[in-house]
Amino acid sequence: MFNPSLVNSIAEQLLSRRWVLGTAESCTGGMVAAALTDVSGSSEWFEEGLVTYANHSKSRLLNVSPALLEQEGAVSEATVSAMVTGVLSRGADVAVATSGIAGPGGGSVDKPVGTVWFAWRQGDHLITDKQVFPGDRSQVRKQATEHALAGVLKLLESTV
Amino acid sequence: MFNPSLVNSIAEQLLSRRWVLGTAESCTGGMVAAALTDVSGSSEWFEEGLVTYANHSKSRLLNVSPALLEQEGAVSEATVSAMVTGVLSRGADVAVATSGIAGPGGGSVDKPVGTVWFAWRQGDHLITDKQVFPGDRSQVRKQATEHALAGVLKLLESTV
Repeated sequence: MFNPSLVNSIAEQLLSRRWVLGTAESCTGGMVAAALTDVSGSSEWFEEGLVTYANHSKSRLLNVSPALLEQEGAVSEATVSAMVTGVLSRGADVAVATSGIAGPGGGSVDKPVGTVWFAWRQGDHLITDKQVFPGDRSQVRKQATEHALAGVLKLLESTV
Repeated sequence: MFNPSLVNSIAEQLLSRRWVLGTAESCTGGMVAAALTDVSGSSEWFEEGLVTYANHSKSRLLNVSPALLEQEGAVSEATVSAMVTGVLSRGADVAVATSGIAGPGGGSVDKPVGTVWFAWRQGDHLITDKQVFPGDRSQVRKQATEHALAGVLKLLESTV
């Protein structure tokens, strides 16, 4: 399931710093957490993953403000930024969040199907990114999961 | 990803009763939530999934008592029963929980690798089940995910 060498590299980086990774997923629906925990020994650096599918779940678990969700939408840079901040405030050292439109419904001119916002955060180091992936629901979710994982490794490797 | 007709049947049952399903996963690490959300329209009956990998996450998010975890172990009937009760208390109408030893490490004589406890709950209707699955880590997790989903449908179909 997904690139195990990618997850192994993430694991090595986290273990060497004694850091714990936390996830907050909307459109990927648990696939990021599933990929991370597919690797044996993941309990040493992964403690908790949240699939916050509904807006009120994002607010309740991650402290994403309902006003922000209303104003910017769930699929936005502001929302994924708030999601990773929420994960860190729950005790993780490194966080990744996804929110997107996997389709087939829910797309618009501004945010077509395949649009996924990502955020990664460690300490004050916040990275955000938007992608518009091609393909059907499964393909969008798979690409989003891979991109989320690749971004975790990139963040870790860029952090001295 | 997994049997879509199984998830479609779960969706139909939930929609017809206007019920929301919640998940609490340990050894399956997000795979149950991922399978559920692979189906378009799942946001109508799936709002939140919790991957409570660490014991303190089970306690904090699901109110599983640390004393119970200490006494019975995370992989036990008592723990998965407390996990589904925790999911219902967070607002879901129907809950499923998994906790097991996916391996390759962590097995014992009493609880060999492949041992997975399941619980499903709707209202006061609680079902628990233990399985010992063959195969490697990936195969154990996959079988556990399928069993968890099949159990949700069985619970729904047995509930008038």
